[in-house]
Amino acid sequence: MNKVLVLLSGGIDSTTALYDAVKKYETVTAVSFNYGSKHNKRELKFAAFHCKTLNVRHEVIELSFMNNLFKSDLLKSGGDIPDGHYQEQSMKQTVVPFRNGIMLSIAAGFAESIEADGIVIAAHAGDHTIYPDCREEFMTAIAQAINLGTYANIKILRPFIDIDKTAIVKLGQTLKVPYQYTYSCYKGYESHCGNCGTCVERKEAFQLSGIADPTDYISDKEEQAESHQEESPQADSQVD
Amino acid sequence: MNKVLVLLSGGIDSTTALYDAVKKYETVTAVSFNYGSKHNKRELKFAAFHCKTLNVRHEVIELSFMNNLFKSDLLKSGGDIPDGHYQEQSMKQTVVPFRNGIMLSIAAGFAESIEADGIVIAAHAGDHTIYPDCREEFMTAIAQAINLGTYANIKILRPFIDIDKTAIVKLGQTLKVPYQYTYSCYKGYESHCGNCGTCVERKEAFQLSGIADPTDYISDKEEQAESHQEESPQADSQVD
Repeated sequence: MNKVLVLLSGGIDSTTALYDAVKKYETVTAVSFNYGSKHNKRELKFAAFHCKTLNVRHEVIELSFMNNLFKSDLLKSGGDIPDGHYQEQSMKQTVVPFRNGIMLSIAAGFAESIEADGIVIAAHAGDHTIYPDCREEFMTAIAQAINLGTYANIKILRPFIDIDKTAIVKLGQTLKVPYQYTYSCYKGYESHCGNCGTCVERKEAFQLSGIADPTDYISDKEEQAESHQEESPQADSQVD
Repeated sequence: MNKVLVLLSGGIDSTTALYDAVKKYETVTAVSFNYGSKHNKRELKFAAFHCKTLNVRHEVIELSFMNNLFKSDLLKSGGDIPDGHYQEQSMKQTVVPFRNGIMLSIAAGFAESIEADGIVIAAHAGDHTIYPDCREEFMTAIAQAINLGTYANIKILRPFIDIDKTAIVKLGQTLKVPYQYTYSCYKGYESHCGNCGTCVERKEAFQLSGIADPTDYISDKEEQAESHQEESPQADSQVD
């Protein structure tokens, strides 16, 4: 195994997987997908940044049909992103139908074309069972389909499958991943909202790993502003 | 099963599958892919024609990255299409890496989004083993991946899996499929070349089914011109 294709979103997990792959393999190519999610624009900018930094070939594949035809609140065409922890049933509406299946299938065709031996996907132990195309059984089945449907012998590599996001951040620190240049928030604001499922997870990973979180969360600023407001009398009340 | 999504290229097989589906199911949607093959432009025009005729919703999904990034002589970016029968090893260079895997994966996500129960693919008994993603084992594996990777219970329907192209044409005649509005030639010329693997198969299917072939083949015209030339003295030789 010396030539791999990394699925790169520009979030914490896949960016760490990219730095890890560059260390492990001779030739690394990265592929990102612009499928019309609310946060695509933010994360793809960082994906490009890391590839440039690491001198890695980077291809961005346009899948705009997903935003036009698919039903999911993660997409620009969908409804609002819910706040709160992932475990909540409400996060189900952010599932993009068969997204990993589509991305892995495209990666398989691309990998065969460039004669890569493996596809790296940053699936990890903390991935949620509300996403059917993150589950172990699905991964086994799609690997089988790729194996049977191509001439090549392409392995699906999941370097983080036995560790969680906290351990990924710890590993990332040893790899010197500049996490200030990663994006997670599903809402796609310029700064991370701090309240959606992915923001909650991002915060937790840094807190639990004991590594300083370089992220500006909108929610933190709002909290600060509120506590500041409570402490000091309002301008209006002074006048009255 | 009353709502299906038909994979429609605009060739003989998938066009027949569309007419067949319209007869069998309550709601039919068709999806075509513009992936940069030499003949896409020709076949997609016919795909759109049939959907309009049958009053079927038709979506054309742009996959231009395949032409840019994938390696295959079927693509505009690839080399010349070989002449001769499919069985020949030379046709291997027309395989587009994991094309059916990619199309079925996208169809799965779209089918889940529109709540379709099945995806119709016109795979048939004559499909060639040089295409790994046409084989039975692959179809079983991708069906399994789709089943595990979505919330829905989407079946992959292969109505022609036990019949060959000759039988498809016979069925098409009973369904009144206007085959003059279908396109098969891998070379993508305005008229069918008559010499490439798909043209050879198209000719054979009409000949063996005993149904008049409505296709204008360039090779037939050339043969006629040559035989005409042999019979009548050349203008030049008359002068000499």
